Amino acid sequence: MRGAVMHTPGDVRVENRDDPRIEEPTDAIIRLSATCVCGSDLWPYRGIDVMDGPAPMGHEYVGVVEEVGGEVSGIKRGQFVVGSFWASDNTCEICRAGYQSGCVHRVPMGALGSQAEYLRVPLADGTLVATPEVPPADLIPGYLAASDVLGTGWFAAVAAEAGPGKTVAVVGDGAVGLLAVLAAKQLGAERIVAMSRHESRQKLALEFGATDIVTERGDEGIARIKDMTDGLGAHSVVEAVGTQESMMQAIHSTRPGGHVGFVGVTHDVNLPGMEMFFSLVHLHGGPAPVRRFLPDLMDLIGDRTIDPGKVFDLELPLEQAAEGYRAMDERRAIKTLLRP
Amino acid sequence: MRGAVMHTPGDVRVENRDDPRIEEPTDAIIRLSATCVCGSDLWPYRGIDVMDGPAPMGHEYVGVVEEVGGEVSGIKRGQFVVGSFWASDNTCEICRAGYQSGCVHRVPMGALGSQAEYLRVPLADGTLVATPEVPPADLIPGYLAASDVLGTGWFAAVAAEAGPGKTVAVVGDGAVGLLAVLAAKQLGAERIVAMSRHESRQKLALEFGATDIVTERGDEGIARIKDMTDGLGAHSVVEAVGTQESMMQAIHSTRPGGHVGFVGVTHDVNLPGMEMFFSLVHLHGGPAPVRRFLPDLMDLIGDRTIDPGKVFDLELPLEQAAEGYRAMDERRAIKTLLRP
Repeated sequence: MRGAVMHTPGDVRVENRDDPRIEEPTDAIIRLSATCVCGSDLWPYRGIDVMDGPAPMGHEYVGVVEEVGGEVSGIKRGQFVVGSFWASDNTCEICRAGYQSGCVHRVPMGALGSQAEYLRVPLADGTLVATPEVPPADLIPGYLAASDVLGTGWFAAVAAEAGPGKTVAVVGDGAVGLLAVLAAKQLGAERIVAMSRHESRQKLALEFGATDIVTERGDEGIARIKDMTDGLGAHSVVEAVGTQESMMQAIHSTRPGGHVGFVGVTHDVNLPGMEMFFSLVHLHGGPAPVRRFLPDLMDLIGDRTIDPGKVFDLELPLEQAAEGYRAMDERRAIKTLLRP
Repeated sequence: MRGAVMHTPGDVRVENRDDPRIEEPTDAIIRLSATCVCGSDLWPYRGIDVMDGPAPMGHEYVGVVEEVGGEVSGIKRGQFVVGSFWASDNTCEICRAGYQSGCVHRVPMGALGSQAEYLRVPLADGTLVATPEVPPADLIPGYLAASDVLGTGWFAAVAAEAGPGKTVAVVGDGAVGLLAVLAAKQLGAERIVAMSRHESRQKLALEFGATDIVTERGDEGIARIKDMTDGLGAHSVVEAVGTQESMMQAIHSTRPGGHVGFVGVTHDVNLPGMEMFFSLVHLHGGPAPVRRFLPDLMDLIGDRTIDPGKVFDLELPLEQAAEGYRAMDERRAIKTLLRP
C-alpha cells in the first residue's frame, strides 16, 4: 500500500509500505476513508522531537472495516468506524474511569502510521466506534476531526470545566483550540474568548461560538482577560499550544479556584512551583481520552449539530502529504485532510 | 504586649511589641488563648525564605474578642473565635466560590504576627468564626489546629478528591500530612496510606485513620503505592511537603485520571511539562481556603468527633517560643503550641 513516511525532519515521502495484517486476534484492519496531519506531527517535522530513523506517520483515521481478528466481536467488516490516537481496551479500571489514553493496554496509533491506505487497529472492540451506517461523503471530515482534534479540544474544555455561567478563554488557535471553542459552546459556556491574531482563525472561532477575540499574548493577553472579568480572570482556560509562554498565559489568565485544561504537548515546559501554588488554579490535561467522548461526539456530527470538519481548510490526495505538512508548518493551513 | 520576633534565621526572641489597635472599622482585636509554630515558619528560620529584617511571627490563632471596629456586625466582644491565616471578606466572588485564600481583599495574617498576646484581625466579619460559647480548655488545641493545619490538610484531601471507594496516599508526615489523613478518613476514603518513616508520626497517622504505612520514599515509595493498587497508582494523593522530590513522588504515585492535592509550599519546585502531561493527573492546591471549611470543622471539634489537637506534641509558654522553633526544626516536635 501507499503511506507517508518521515525520513528526517522536513522530509515526508509517500512510498510503498507493507500492507498491514491481523497480528493479534483483537486487531482490525481498516481501509481509510480519510486521514490527516496533526499539529503534533510538526514536532518531529521541525526537528524538535528527535527521530530514530524513518517512521510511518499519522494517528488520525476514519474508514471502513476490511477484516477483524478472531476475538473481535463488536466491530464487523463493512462498518464505518472512528478511533482515537490511542488504542485502548475500554474495559480496564483506568478506561472505565474515562481515561482511555491511560489504558493499561494502550497502544499509540502513531507507531502504526494512519497516513496510508490501510491501518491495523489494535484492541478493535475497545478502540473503534461504528456509525449506524456508512455516512455521506460530506460528513467524513467531521468524523475524522473526532478521531483527535475534536476529542482533544472537547477534553480540554471539560478539563477546564467549561459550562453554564462560565467565562472560558482559549489559548491557541490551531484546530484543537478552535474545537475547544466549539466544545465550550456546546457545553453551555456564557462567554468564550478566543485568543488569536490570525484573521481566518478568528473567523472560524466566531463561527464555532466565540463571543470575543483577544489578539494580545503573554502579559498583555492576561491583562485583557482580567479586564474582561472584573480583574478576576476567566473561570476556565484551555491551553492548546504547549509552550512555556502559553502555559503561563493560561495559568495567569485563570481566577483563583478556576480550571486550566491543557492539551498542547508541553515541550520544554517547566511549571514554577510557587506560581502554581499561589495561582490556586486546578490543572488537568495530557493526551486526551478521546474514546470517552467519541460516541456522543459522533452522534452530534451524524445529526449535524456540529461541523468540526470545518477545521480542514486544505484537502489533498495522500500522495501530496508532503505539501500538506509544508502548508501547516508555514501556517498556510489550519489542518490538512489527506484522501488515500 | 509580648510577642515573638524573628531577627535573623534561627534567632527568634519574645520581646515587647506595640499593642495592636483597631486601624480599620472592619478590624477586631483578639486576646490569644493559644497560638503555635507552623512548618512554614521554618522556611525563614532555616534561611530558605529571605527576610527583610526583623519580623513578628505567627499566623495561627484562637482567642477571645476584646474589641471590634465600628463596621463589624457579626462578631462581638467576649466571643471565642477562630480565623484562618488569610483574612478575607468572605463576600467577593472568589470567596463565594470557596477560595477565600484568593479573596480580592485578602490580608496575610503572618504580617501581623499571631505569636503574641494580642492580634489585630482585619475583615473580622469575613475572617472570624465564633463558637456558640467559650469552649473548655481541652478543646483549645483542636480549634487552634483548625486555624491552619487542619484546614490545610482538609483542603488537600478535598483537592485530591478523597472519598468513598478511594485509595488515598499522603506524602508528608508533618501536622498537615497527618491531618490530611484525618480528613481522608472523615471524607470516607477506603484505604489511607501514610508515607512516613518516623515512629511517633506513624502512630498518630494510624490513630487518625491511616490503614497502611509506607516508609519508602522517591521511586521506591512510588513502587510501593503501585504495588498496593494493582499497578495503577492511588486515586488521590496529598502532597504536604513542598519539595521537588515530594511533588514528583505525589504525581507519579497517582493513577491516570487521579487527583493530587498539594499544600506544601513549593519552594524551588519545577514541574516538568512532559511528566505532568503524560501523568494525566489532576493537580490542585496552594494556600488553603481554610475559611471555607472552618464552620464545619469547628462543629466536628466542638462535638468531639475529631481531635486534631493531637498534632501538638509540645506545649510551651509563649516566652519560650525559641525552644518551640528549635524543637520543630530538629524534628523533636511535630508542632509546638504556645500559651501567651
